[in-house]
Amino acid sequence: MFAPLLQNLRNRRPLVHAITNYVTANDCANLLLACGASPIMADDPDEAPEITAHAAGLVLNLGTLHRGTIPAMVACGKTANARGIPVVLDPVGAGASRLRTETALQLLREVRFTVIRGNLSEMEALARGHGGAHGVDAAQTVTRDNLEGCCALVRDFARRTGAVAAMSGAVDLVSDGQQVFCIRNGHPMMGLVTGTGCQLSCLAGAFAAANPDCPLEAAAAAVCAMGLCGEIAHQRLGPADGNGSLRTYILDAVCRLTPEQLEKGARYEIR
Amino acid sequence: MFAPLLQNLRNRRPLVHAITNYVTANDCANLLLACGASPIMADDPDEAPEITAHAAGLVLNLGTLHRGTIPAMVACGKTANARGIPVVLDPVGAGASRLRTETALQLLREVRFTVIRGNLSEMEALARGHGGAHGVDAAQTVTRDNLEGCCALVRDFARRTGAVAAMSGAVDLVSDGQQVFCIRNGHPMMGLVTGTGCQLSCLAGAFAAANPDCPLEAAAAAVCAMGLCGEIAHQRLGPADGNGSLRTYILDAVCRLTPEQLEKGARYEIR
Amino acid sequence: MFAPLLQNLRNRRPLVHAITNYVTANDCANLLLACGASPIMADDPDEAPEITAHAAGLVLNLGTLHRGTIPAMVACGKTANARGIPVVLDPVGAGASRLRTETALQLLREVRFTVIRGNLSEMEALARGHGGAHGVDAAQTVTRDNLEGCCALVRDFARRTGAVAAMSGAVDLVSDGQQVFCIRNGHPMMGLVTGTGCQLSCLAGAFAAANPDCPLEAAAAAVCAMGLCGEIAHQRLGPADGNGSLRTYILDAVCRLTPEQLEKGARYEIR
Repeated sequence: MFAPLLQNLRNRRPLVHAITNYVTANDCANLLLACGASPIMADDPDEAPEITAHAAGLVLNLGTLHRGTIPAMVACGKTANARGIPVVLDPVGAGASRLRTETALQLLREVRFTVIRGNLSEMEALARGHGGAHGVDAAQTVTRDNLEGCCALVRDFARRTGAVAAMSGAVDLVSDGQQVFCIRNGHPMMGLVTGTGCQLSCLAGAFAAANPDCPLEAAAAAVCAMGLCGEIAHQRLGPADGNGSLRTYILDAVCRLTPEQLEKGARYEIR
Repeated sequence: MFAPLLQNLRNRRPLVHAITNYVTANDCANLLLACGASPIMADDPDEAPEITAHAAGLVLNLGTLHRGTIPAMVACGKTANARGIPVVLDPVGAGASRLRTETALQLLREVRFTVIRGNLSEMEALARGHGGAHGVDAAQTVTRDNLEGCCALVRDFARRTGAVAAMSGAVDLVSDGQQVFCIRNGHPMMGLVTGTGCQLSCLAGAFAAANPDCPLEAAAAAVCAMGLCGEIAHQRLGPADGNGSLRTYILDAVCRLTPEQLEKGARYEIR
Repeated sequence: MFAPLLQNLRNRRPLVHAITNYVTANDCANLLLACGASPIMADDPDEAPEITAHAAGLVLNLGTLHRGTIPAMVACGKTANARGIPVVLDPVGAGASRLRTETALQLLREVRFTVIRGNLSEMEALARGHGGAHGVDAAQTVTRDNLEGCCALVRDFARRTGAVAAMSGAVDLVSDGQQVFCIRNGHPMMGLVTGTGCQLSCLAGAFAAANPDCPLEAAAAAVCAMGLCGEIAHQRLGPADGNGSLRTYILDAVCRLTPEQLEKGARYEIR
């Protein structure tokens, strides 16, 4: 199912505009290049919408959010909606501060998102629909035990937002409000590399930009591809290697990933 | 002495809030993950204190300082003081510009720091106590020849600020105003990797957050650990490797560092 | 011709002040360290000119441009001109947004540049001399087929700006308005590593800072060195390596590059 989606990405080389945080921007740009897309970063409100107007996809990431950047995010989202190009939201830290929660909620009101990619805490904060801060809780995640509840949450979240919801955790869930892809790719050590979530959101933006007619499958393909590349990267680790090498090897794996490899390595079921 | 401190860090996985520069933020986040902590970066005055309120430690770094970020640094420092969590200051470039020197001095007046980590030039600029710019002088460093004078300076600096002072150089000095740890770990080639100082300040924040009752030993352990990991990383270099690989290997070494390795590899004397 | 220029850079270790984007700032800093220079990043208008006043070279890069940074760029450029130190402009994205095009044109009016380093699209946008946005067009590049026309363009651009013009492409062209160096170093896969252009601009700044009397040769040496290091890095790639490893190996190659290697590996003709 996913091989042609990656092939389209490699062939079409979509320009993806990302407004993202300064912690992981470099890895996001290299990830976009690795997967076959072309990255451009711009967040000043005076130029950002003009950049979106040239792009095939847009990714909005709330990490290290600055108040001055919010108008650029809104304007770029509206430009993308007007042009009919996919928009991905990564609500990093929603629930951890009022500014991030409220900004995410504002974006949900003003922009139609194609894909929203976050973890359970972030999606619950947005599903509650108010700006209270509830702290960072990395332990709160999708597991085998809460899988049914999380499937219901992600399906409901997708229905309410009109976006494909991609919830990251020990099992990844991707839903358009009807179907739920339960994806079992990935390796726990990916959590030791900062920004693998941000990179996944960019990868989803690239897959969606190259495959605008099937956002559910595009998001699921991105989640499988990122997880699979994490597995490949982890297998390369030697006895002295840690998260520094893992970071490099993940990019390498995305760069080398073939459509056939993705097709064969994707591990998912549809519920 | 240091093994239990690292073991605490691995067990407690403290959330460390860092306000740091955009040049080395990615390495700082990966360093925090490598050592067992959990990083969060946020610098907008509208959300930063709220993030500190969830954290177990705070690191303030003056690299690529923006005037708009200073109120966030002050507010986060006060929040950390009110909550009794450790705060680390890295006065990058104090002495190199009036803005940085005066900001560092303002922070010293308004925030009680647990650890201040810098080089000789930066500490001298702060010890002079005024905002004159004196240029960047990498040659001015702790050596065997000026060791006695530097020990006196670092001890005096610690007494006057009430913080543990950690002065980086060919020999690293860490003092609480009474004792001075003279540490001989590290390798000169670490100076070819940008941000090893910023990373060390984050590591000190992580050690202090996990060991809030012994800030002197926590800072000394961080300095030994960072230097030791630089040595381990340097030993891995092949004939074609340079500072790119060294950067990766340093993170790898921190990720793999065991309490026993740290205990055995730490090279210091107490004066 | 180029060996003594690299030797000067290694011996003099110039302090290079870079105002650059947050996507590639870390790689730029490590590149400067790798080549033998000493990097400092500062972009707040309240301190940036003071930093330039300590430096031996200045690099202005328009990636992720923020309107608030423009006064710092202008002031630093004027400071550098007053002190007679080399200034490099990297007009990233000129032509892609009005803000970037107009900022580049403003800088060209207010600052005398030593070297301007960009691609064909960016230079054409600046040569047109107005702020219309024309999109990002990576396909528009110097090739064997349009080499004559590009040589004329780069020569004319250098004459009109009074700077050495360095145009990157499948063939790189460097001209002072009289001679044109046609340089055939490099590897196409370098385009998969974000920021190799930004790094090259920093390398040109370092070469020019260490060799202020021969900016044409300094810029040409930087272009040859960066391309040659890309070739060396590419040769190291194993079957599982992609752009992650290539990024690391490029820095490694710059770090290890000897004057003799550069002299022997530089492939250029002068027209």
